[in-house]
Amino acid sequence: MTAPRALRQDPDFQELLERLGVVWDLKAAAAVLAWDQETWMPPEGAPARARQLATLARLRHELFTAPRMGELLLRLQERTENLPADSFEASLVRVAARLHRRAVRIPPRLAEEWSQATARATHEWIVARRENRFALFAPHLARNVRLAREMADCLTWEQERYDALLEEYEPGMTTRQVDQLFQSLQAGLEGLVRAVLQQARPRQQYDGALRGRFPRAAQERLTLQVLEAVGFQFGRGRQDCSPHPFTTSFGAGDVRLTTRYREDNFTEALLSTLHEAGHALYEQGLPPEWERTPLFEGASLGVHESQSRLWENLVGRSREFWRFVLPLARRAFPGELAGVDPEQCYRAVNAVRPGLIRTEADELTYNLHIFLRFRLERELLEGRLAVEDLPDAWNAAMESLLGLRPPDDARGVLQDIHWAHGSFGYFPSYTLGNVLAVQLYRQALQELPGIPEAVARGDFAPLLGWMRRHVHRWGASLTGDELVRRAT
Amino acid sequence: MTAPRALRQDPDFQELLERLGVVWDLKAAAAVLAWDQETWMPPEGAPARARQLATLARLRHELFTAPRMGELLLRLQERTENLPADSFEASLVRVAARLHRRAVRIPPRLAEEWSQATARATHEWIVARRENRFALFAPHLARNVRLAREMADCLTWEQERYDALLEEYEPGMTTRQVDQLFQSLQAGLEGLVRAVLQQARPRQQYDGALRGRFPRAAQERLTLQVLEAVGFQFGRGRQDCSPHPFTTSFGAGDVRLTTRYREDNFTEALLSTLHEAGHALYEQGLPPEWERTPLFEGASLGVHESQSRLWENLVGRSREFWRFVLPLARRAFPGELAGVDPEQCYRAVNAVRPGLIRTEADELTYNLHIFLRFRLERELLEGRLAVEDLPDAWNAAMESLLGLRPPDDARGVLQDIHWAHGSFGYFPSYTLGNVLAVQLYRQALQELPGIPEAVARGDFAPLLGWMRRHVHRWGASLTGDELVRRAT
Repeated sequence: MTAPRALRQDPDFQELLERLGVVWDLKAAAAVLAWDQETWMPPEGAPARARQLATLARLRHELFTAPRMGELLLRLQERTENLPADSFEASLVRVAARLHRRAVRIPPRLAEEWSQATARATHEWIVARRENRFALFAPHLARNVRLAREMADCLTWEQERYDALLEEYEPGMTTRQVDQLFQSLQAGLEGLVRAVLQQARPRQQYDGALRGRFPRAAQERLTLQVLEAVGFQFGRGRQDCSPHPFTTSFGAGDVRLTTRYREDNFTEALLSTLHEAGHALYEQGLPPEWERTPLFEGASLGVHESQSRLWENLVGRSREFWRFVLPLARRAFPGELAGVDPEQCYRAVNAVRPGLIRTEADELTYNLHIFLRFRLERELLEGRLAVEDLPDAWNAAMESLLGLRPPDDARGVLQDIHWAHGSFGYFPSYTLGNVLAVQLYRQALQELPGIPEAVARGDFAPLLGWMRRHVHRWGASLTGDELVRRAT
Repeated sequence: MTAPRALRQDPDFQELLERLGVVWDLKAAAAVLAWDQETWMPPEGAPARARQLATLARLRHELFTAPRMGELLLRLQERTENLPADSFEASLVRVAARLHRRAVRIPPRLAEEWSQATARATHEWIVARRENRFALFAPHLARNVRLAREMADCLTWEQERYDALLEEYEPGMTTRQVDQLFQSLQAGLEGLVRAVLQQARPRQQYDGALRGRFPRAAQERLTLQVLEAVGFQFGRGRQDCSPHPFTTSFGAGDVRLTTRYREDNFTEALLSTLHEAGHALYEQGLPPEWERTPLFEGASLGVHESQSRLWENLVGRSREFWRFVLPLARRAFPGELAGVDPEQCYRAVNAVRPGLIRTEADELTYNLHIFLRFRLERELLEGRLAVEDLPDAWNAAMESLLGLRPPDDARGVLQDIHWAHGSFGYFPSYTLGNVLAVQLYRQALQELPGIPEAVARGDFAPLLGWMRRHVHRWGASLTGDELVRRAT
């Protein structure tokens, strides 16, 4: 049996590390370009940026699928067979080989077209959303769908095409499993939503508690304060502004999140910041010595989303959090929030109010937004729904699931960036993340019952520490399944 | 004789275009990473960023020096022999072949080490300058010097090592020519500086005219207004803030400049913005259809610098410009500048006052700063001066040339980013730019004598139009020499 230490000296292993490092550098470089595209890039920078991202994607794909990479992985798989499965060496070879098997199935031409098309579509989506004109976005979305179908067919699938794309985010899960889980959740949720909505009085009572004028600069200072408090390290990251909040990482020392502000509502930016902070804390908690390898990532998208939902919903919508944050918010917005107490805030941010926008949805109705997207993208990919019919299908599904009809596409089918990005199969992970967040939080509370009181004091270290030890430090060396099983 | 149109259909020419396009994309991607490094990157992002830039540089170098590139260029050089020398096709092959000859002389290992070392050194320079500790920067500078010497030896040289590096910025020029030009300029300048300084009274009279408190946000708005007025297109670019102002381009639709602000002095940011605007207008004026080729660049660094010096000195320090900008400045800084007239501003921004900082120097003493840097970097590269002795040598030279001794290294040897960037041989172009700016402006005035009065009205189109037609539109298809000869 080879010792892990001995394998580190193996020239093949070293060559693998170096080759994976170059691939990782190109991925990080592309992430910088994509971040800039969403934050600071001037409008006419888009066409050249799309070409640059396509070139980086093509080179990355070429280097990762080079025959030499396959040879090295094959040889090293033998040499790591007897190593502990959770050692860095065995995990690295296993995970790299899994990604490699998928990557070699995508022809370089398709990888490049994909990157170029999605970058372009993202730009057009921003314009279409701003101008509320689905027609501007439709041809780009149609191309994305066509390419996603082609991609799925190259990746191969058994039961249905959507499986091949879902695998990217939730390895080992099938579309049918997701569908079944969603149907059983939906049955429970719809009853719950109806029951809560019938108690209309308490909702209305707290509804106006958080109304006011909240200047953008003050909101920005408040979100930075909260980020600092929960443990985000600004020496190793930053927060910017973008139309659709996201988190990205260029390395252990550079993790960035974005947010957006509405001056009539500060809880949106605050909770969105906590959501992205969950992703960002995960990225900042990955083992820095794994940088430049495919282990320097979250275990799965669902696990990543468990972290964001944890901080947004289980922390950010708790009574204890509002005992901590309300005094800060009062200082940030002098004259506002004077007569409000933490209990009213707690009730206001937990009000169940079916709405049009996923990212503003309450915990209860949020998953209904996911079910809708999952079903529509599944239909698009199976070819049972045409892009031109999508707005109507969207609006009909909204009406049936949430009892609301979007007055325009900006508040309907154009609200999310995902399909522009080409992220088909991504939405289910949000709901999976909701479920995992509760599982992980319950376990953390069992081991550390003082967490809520610490949160009320602004001490987030016990909760973050638990997540660091049980989730973050494993990077992608465990699958989501293994990770959750070990943690709970 | 092959017609240019026929050559465009040539598969070899098309392959050359595609290969150059990929190389250009990598260069643009690296430019985005470098821009972010100077503007928004958190401090601990530096090590990973250095590796990413090194990887991009290595891949770019590998792709540009691939044997296939040499074959294509050789074949196409024959096929373009009979084309007009200033046609796109002939120029492209000629310029690409010149760059290729240089690039193949640099071993990939050295190219990567260079990129990594200079990225790291730039980061350390920022810290060293902030903390005023040359010792922090010294080992990184020493490595840069060692690598630059190695680079020069690979590039080959005849008379002296510095020639090989100068060639990068001013093709065809020798160190001795620069030295002779500088000696003759120095003889004239020193007398002039002495004469002006003896008239101490008028200088002091206007000295205080532009004193006051100028809030950063108001300065920012003013510089954006001026950028808009001179013709910078914000749909195709932006302005940010960085410790050392610079301009960069990621394509025809994305040209970015940076500036920096001092709240006790608004002319520094204003003139620095005009300087960078000169570079940025040049980049925005390049033929967009030449994007992704090596012709999509300035003709030489000296010509690039002629544009920045033109806008900074010949426009920004003119009476007419102050008739235009003073009313804007008064609105930007209410309560300040009330009793000042354009003539006083004109005199204040043209006051000759030997100072420690190159970027704040007046037109007259500016070149003395360049002479100093040219001589020191020449000594460093020849091995006649050690990095540890550099601060003393700097201070002694400042005393002899400008009669001033820097009180610390932050205001001495640490003030410029160039050596941290590895840009040895770059400084002479500033003075060459000063000379070319006057040549070009004189010609423009001869053809369009209304330019100064237009400037006073805030109409910069006649001057910009002339530069577009005679300088910008040629890209790198002409050498600096040819371009100036044609223009004047």
